[in-house]
Amino acid sequence: MTTSELSDVQGRRDERATAIEAAGVSGLRIPITVTDRGGRQQHTVATASLSVDVPADRKGAHMSRFVQVITSNSASVSVTGMGDLARTMIERLEADSGEISLTFPYFVDKAAPVSGEVGPMDYEATLRVRIDRQQTEAWVTVAVPATSLCPCSKEISDYSAHNQRSIITISITRFDDAAPVWLEDLIEIGETAASCPVYAVLKRVDEKHVTEAAYDNPKFVEDIVRDLAAPLDADGRISRYDIHVDNMESIHNHSAFARIRRDKR
Amino acid sequence: MTTSELSDVQGRRDERATAIEAAGVSGLRIPITVTDRGGRQQHTVATASLSVDVPADRKGAHMSRFVQVITSNSASVSVTGMGDLARTMIERLEADSGEISLTFPYFVDKAAPVSGEVGPMDYEATLRVRIDRQQTEAWVTVAVPATSLCPCSKEISDYSAHNQRSIITISITRFDDAAPVWLEDLIEIGETAASCPVYAVLKRVDEKHVTEAAYDNPKFVEDIVRDLAAPLDADGRISRYDIHVDNMESIHNHSAFARIRRDKR
Amino acid sequence: MTTSELSDVQGRRDERATAIEAAGVSGLRIPITVTDRGGRQQHTVATASLSVDVPADRKGAHMSRFVQVITSNSASVSVTGMGDLARTMIERLEADSGEISLTFPYFVDKAAPVSGEVGPMDYEATLRVRIDRQQTEAWVTVAVPATSLCPCSKEISDYSAHNQRSIITISITRFDDAAPVWLEDLIEIGETAASCPVYAVLKRVDEKHVTEAAYDNPKFVEDIVRDLAAPLDADGRISRYDIHVDNMESIHNHSAFARIRRDKR
Amino acid sequence: MTTSELSDVQGRRDERATAIEAAGVSGLRIPITVTDRGGRQQHTVATASLSVDVPADRKGAHMSRFVQVITSNSASVSVTGMGDLARTMIERLEADSGEISLTFPYFVDKAAPVSGEVGPMDYEATLRVRIDRQQTEAWVTVAVPATSLCPCSKEISDYSAHNQRSIITISITRFDDAAPVWLEDLIEIGETAASCPVYAVLKRVDEKHVTEAAYDNPKFVEDIVRDLAAPLDADGRISRYDIHVDNMESIHNHSAFARIRRDKR
Repeated sequence: MTTSELSDVQGRRDERATAIEAAGVSGLRIPITVTDRGGRQQHTVATASLSVDVPADRKGAHMSRFVQVITSNSASVSVTGMGDLARTMIERLEADSGEISLTFPYFVDKAAPVSGEVGPMDYEATLRVRIDRQQTEAWVTVAVPATSLCPCSKEISDYSAHNQRSIITISITRFDDAAPVWLEDLIEIGETAASCPVYAVLKRVDEKHVTEAAYDNPKFVEDIVRDLAAPLDADGRISRYDIHVDNMESIHNHSAFARIRRDKR
Repeated sequence: MTTSELSDVQGRRDERATAIEAAGVSGLRIPITVTDRGGRQQHTVATASLSVDVPADRKGAHMSRFVQVITSNSASVSVTGMGDLARTMIERLEADSGEISLTFPYFVDKAAPVSGEVGPMDYEATLRVRIDRQQTEAWVTVAVPATSLCPCSKEISDYSAHNQRSIITISITRFDDAAPVWLEDLIEIGETAASCPVYAVLKRVDEKHVTEAAYDNPKFVEDIVRDLAAPLDADGRISRYDIHVDNMESIHNHSAFARIRRDKR
Repeated sequence: MTTSELSDVQGRRDERATAIEAAGVSGLRIPITVTDRGGRQQHTVATASLSVDVPADRKGAHMSRFVQVITSNSASVSVTGMGDLARTMIERLEADSGEISLTFPYFVDKAAPVSGEVGPMDYEATLRVRIDRQQTEAWVTVAVPATSLCPCSKEISDYSAHNQRSIITISITRFDDAAPVWLEDLIEIGETAASCPVYAVLKRVDEKHVTEAAYDNPKFVEDIVRDLAAPLDADGRISRYDIHVDNMESIHNHSAFARIRRDKR
Repeated sequence: MTTSELSDVQGRRDERATAIEAAGVSGLRIPITVTDRGGRQQHTVATASLSVDVPADRKGAHMSRFVQVITSNSASVSVTGMGDLARTMIERLEADSGEISLTFPYFVDKAAPVSGEVGPMDYEATLRVRIDRQQTEAWVTVAVPATSLCPCSKEISDYSAHNQRSIITISITRFDDAAPVWLEDLIEIGETAASCPVYAVLKRVDEKHVTEAAYDNPKFVEDIVRDLAAPLDADGRISRYDIHVDNMESIHNHSAFARIRRDKR
């Protein structure tokens, strides 16, 4: 017996007259390669989500096709190629619209600030695309770990200041395929807005440097989110952004956070 | 020295002219009591997030006040009382708008379908409210675990069908305080839409019942999300909803999901 | 039809001659009350795991009985009462040995160091007991968040020092029911060993205090774990311990950790 | 100024006379390649933990060296090469003993049982090694997702049976480098012990097959753990094992589990 001889239950008519915005698969782990800003490819592992709309008169989506689409086309993705992947998917699924999201650790070889010692820094990244008959909308998201040092603590204390790891999450949308925004672009914006970047490897000369640099550059979460907004506002490639800063406070067991969302169109 | 003698850094003028949509605290765990549909109170533990807007000319929010507001007013919350809590917060923080979100396990004593054996079923719930000068907007969200049984697997197989735990997440918005939507209301809608509810305690007579009931009521994720939409569309108390069904597939290491969002206004 | 008329598959003979160390349920969420050191009861929510041994000639355990045991006896637990709960379980399951573990957020009302402002601090706690024909063995575990400040960073930098949230996990075993070790005892040991405790609420005078106190008391993870070992070694109630300190480094995207395990018998 | 001109605080004498079992780094994400059973290399991303003992008279470990060791030597790891990596680490850290653990998603191209459609199945794997002056001890761990179908539900119900995703975790120890145990070996043992394997891609003919195969092969968690023990007992390469089966029950919101640990020496 073959698949085509078995009933196609998902392909049947549905009588409830309710269209479904998205039906698909999530939590699917796959190896991928990502092209970086310099044109090099890096190997990593993504958690994928793929979905299409289901029209009111169709029973459901053929779930196995999502896995086939992503595993046979994921040899190489980049911030510019997600639209083609989504187009392939909606054709294969015979759908009008669809969405793909890939979340993965992304690595940048980063030199320590004084010793120059190089180590791979990891950033959590997401490439997401939504396609329909009218347009393709692409999101690039990256979570940038960094150091924040509290301006209030610095000012009111006779010495020192509490500091902690911040997670700076930058998500941008662009509508024009001609001007890609690279993960490295957003990482640089994130690290510049913090009190100090963090590194995989720091020797003692570097540790002295980052300790003093953070103290010289105190920032509230509110400061960081504002200092992210400025370059994103000025960047013509970006039509919308959603920025979120989370300080894993060293003096509390909870976080302080700040958020700005802006649609520039 | 007292707090009022130390510099108020957060309260200072900021020169960047960038308003912040939300600044506050997150990941704060607190004990709370929740009033249920029957008027009884249950004790549970919430993870809280509280934030206010920060105007363009102010440096930041006074973070310690969020913790004071929620710990001195969280003795008792309910689906109807979140607006008052948010109003207290924006007054204390001298802000124009704000948002509070409380996520907690919620328990319903549930009788097994045949034996009547009672055990506490846990549901992950979120009460969220957003307040500004114009209006108060309240969300009620609950994640309902349930059984789904695959219609395709049932139809094409000579016997049996694959089934699995689904997580049915229903999030609703209402604008009118006169007509509360209770967590129990949403739990009932969720369990009715599944192939079969799940239970904390099942004796053998119950296990026979749920096995056969699920087989008699096969549902794709697409079926479940459509069968959730119908009662939510018909319910006049609900102005918007966002429903998401996630099947932790027993034949894969990934999930199948479906989603519908609707604004009825 | 009743449960007793249906086949008891779990109760059958098994022919593989392989005894099972533990079979049971896990990930079960239940409301509980915990008696604190002062004799007061606090409401919280536990994630429970319960299991018994399965002898070589029996097919399996009756899983529904675990849920019945814990939901009908969990009205009140304490560091001293876990043995009785485990005894009830192995009798109900007709087993020779068994284990129960309850993990829950535990709250202590804690006053800020200068202002005296009180707020609930949350600690992740686990009460675990293992019982067999010979003995009852009880573990008490608590994860204490605290501040650590780096001695190297302080010494080599012209000013300031990097600091961060540490999670100090202390797990102790005792064999003698006459001398309970309370969660509060372990929390005090943990907070004393850190550079400074953390708090739910800190006003500006408190923030100045904790900033300076941490700088005056720099500690590596290695220092903290050693300063935990000393009071645990000296405490006659404790027969074994396992201590683990995890620094969520503010200058890296990874942790530094240290661990000591000791059996004093 | 260079690192060697700054005080070496970690290298100093410590006066507390307390040796530390393990001090190091954890939560470090790095790209790695893993050699599979067939000699091919696959790219993946590991979360690494590295530690050494700290003698009683030394203040601490030089944390940056762990990151240097793992990032300059992780180009390629395998089940046989972890000992060399650990030896390099303890030499670089001037320590007597040490431990390395790498946890990563591991992929096997797996053909669907009837259609032969190939897709990458993901398994969570851990390679861990502990080295001291006397010996090297190596662990290989893999979590195998699979289908389990309840024998009791099948027997007492007029039709169908509840089934769900199981996570079968097999951890083995070996002392002899001459006889490696490959991740693929453990995956095969795990999938054979379940009611049925799971797959990335299943067409309708495959779905019919796995539905019927699971029903023809019902297993409690207790059955699966016993059917894992038999081949592990018989395998001369394995000196110890720890096996854990977790059923994400489709009729409950909690899991059923079973565990066996055995030292064959």
